[in-house]
Amino acid sequence: MPQTIRGYAAQSATQPLGPFRFERRDPRPDDVVIDILYCGVCHSDLHQVRNEWGGSIYPMVPGHEIIGRVSAVGATVSQFKVGDMVGVGCMVDSCQHCEACAHGLEQYCEEGATFTYNSTDRHDGSPTHGGYSERIVTAEKFVLRIPDGLDPKAAAPLLCAGITTWSPLRHWNIGKGSKVAVVGLGGLGHMGLKFAKALGAEVTLFTRSPGKEAEARRLGADHVVLSTDASQMKAVSSHFDFILDTVPHQHDLNPYLATLKLDGTLCLVGLLEPIDPPASAGQLIRKRRAVVGSLIGGIPETQEMLDFCAQHGIGADIEMIDIQDIDHAYERMLKSDVRYRFVIDLASLDKAA
Amino acid sequence: MPQTIRGYAAQSATQPLGPFRFERRDPRPDDVVIDILYCGVCHSDLHQVRNEWGGSIYPMVPGHEIIGRVSAVGATVSQFKVGDMVGVGCMVDSCQHCEACAHGLEQYCEEGATFTYNSTDRHDGSPTHGGYSERIVTAEKFVLRIPDGLDPKAAAPLLCAGITTWSPLRHWNIGKGSKVAVVGLGGLGHMGLKFAKALGAEVTLFTRSPGKEAEARRLGADHVVLSTDASQMKAVSSHFDFILDTVPHQHDLNPYLATLKLDGTLCLVGLLEPIDPPASAGQLIRKRRAVVGSLIGGIPETQEMLDFCAQHGIGADIEMIDIQDIDHAYERMLKSDVRYRFVIDLASLDKAA
Repeated sequence: MPQTIRGYAAQSATQPLGPFRFERRDPRPDDVVIDILYCGVCHSDLHQVRNEWGGSIYPMVPGHEIIGRVSAVGATVSQFKVGDMVGVGCMVDSCQHCEACAHGLEQYCEEGATFTYNSTDRHDGSPTHGGYSERIVTAEKFVLRIPDGLDPKAAAPLLCAGITTWSPLRHWNIGKGSKVAVVGLGGLGHMGLKFAKALGAEVTLFTRSPGKEAEARRLGADHVVLSTDASQMKAVSSHFDFILDTVPHQHDLNPYLATLKLDGTLCLVGLLEPIDPPASAGQLIRKRRAVVGSLIGGIPETQEMLDFCAQHGIGADIEMIDIQDIDHAYERMLKSDVRYRFVIDLASLDKAA
Repeated sequence: MPQTIRGYAAQSATQPLGPFRFERRDPRPDDVVIDILYCGVCHSDLHQVRNEWGGSIYPMVPGHEIIGRVSAVGATVSQFKVGDMVGVGCMVDSCQHCEACAHGLEQYCEEGATFTYNSTDRHDGSPTHGGYSERIVTAEKFVLRIPDGLDPKAAAPLLCAGITTWSPLRHWNIGKGSKVAVVGLGGLGHMGLKFAKALGAEVTLFTRSPGKEAEARRLGADHVVLSTDASQMKAVSSHFDFILDTVPHQHDLNPYLATLKLDGTLCLVGLLEPIDPPASAGQLIRKRRAVVGSLIGGIPETQEMLDFCAQHGIGADIEMIDIQDIDHAYERMLKSDVRYRFVIDLASLDKAA
């Protein structure tokens, strides 16, 4: 029979999060039951808690950067056993038969992926609830293996901030010889620097704030360009193969487009709706440049990224918090006062009891 | 000594074009002297005559869709001889040593290509003058061979309208199995339909005007979608691999973006400055779609296109005019009252004498 567990939920768009008891389903044959240890705090948690994208379902238990240990498995589960360290990211299900799913790109599922929270289970119609809780029950196919050697706390943000930056860098073949720039130094941007560097690229950080030089270099940047300085921007005119733009709010793309060389690509991973100030068609046409978007990443490439991180000693830079501090963490996140990702220690649920 | 020849020129942004005598240089060792037979009328001629892009140089002899016969060659010219039927497109020179030029993409020359008119000769600093005239002197490297079997009149628009649509279709690997849509049915759009069809794609025309069905099918469209009809647009949601957007003025890209499948590309060849209404980042992110730009085409791919046209019996649909009618043709072009390109018969210069 379904298990009643503890978590933290938003009851409406305007209330702070608070303790919440809810049921997790009994495991289906292909399900893995995971006792949650850690959960990263993503900016999209805040957007959805506050219904800033519309369509929020309450009560809402956020959290899609989930790390935990397997505590039970369904009858047909073959890849995981009790005691394994595992993760769950932004998705918990998809149609599994469309072309995107067949290519391991479940995030682009033609029928729509089932998201980890604020979504609806495609089998029983129940609301999905995320990682601000003590347990999750997830189909084996959407469970990631956390390799030995990865710090489980620092691995949590890899499941969204990590894969969201990894997937485009890999898809657009970033490697040795590539000149890559990252726009924005937050949860996503700091992972973009680490990955681009580890993949062998020459890496530049674009920033609007002076004084980030040492920090950017520590994270993997070879160069830092102050985007408010016209002479610095001119010096990198038509220079980059690829720009990973992680800024999650509206900004002018045109100064960055001018720094792309022939056939260069600027990739958006933040929902700046719409692209305003508008982009210049001439900036695209004059050098056959591209503006593209990329959405998180598929399950196979998420596992690839986790394995790469273990091999290269890469994790997110994190600050641990108790679940009781989540609203304060949201306020700090809004002020970019975090280096670079909050991670909730779910053991703190006991303090609330 | 330099030859004084006849042409038609704009003397300012506000005056109609009129007869103009000017000098063509004596051929340099690598130059080909071409007696012009025909010259296509491009919308960009009008933009530049009226200084709508800024920086226009007067007097200006427009025209960059030039067909003629070789009447003399410089000492080192090896690829052309007197009597050959040849063409000159948008460019007459480039640096010839940058990476773009080395790849035959002279239109993206890092030092800037020399355009056929309204530009400055990179050797002697003189203004360049185009094909609304009886003769042009051009470096061999920028002269195209017009294959036997191509109607020279119908070949003129291939040198801008043709290559501008051919280059992106080839660069983005359009062929058998591709689902391609063309936006706009003008000088460029009608060539886009012909090329996409001849390359083996399934071809759709997007149009805002009902009643173009038969005409579009004649030109190569398998389907016609009325972009003002929401149900027709919905029926092609996430359908296309590639959209060639030839509309040369501002319009909303978002309804078209929604018709691109995963990893689909919308290519702009018109200077809609800026892209307003702005594009939706979400439309890009949700399906990893791209908005790209493409500028005319390089010299090797222009020759490739001309050869393809000869093999496949492709030419532009044209209406011949006398040079004396150019201002009237501009007015009709502004009303899209042309199927699909005006071509000037330069023999009409004799009437003005």
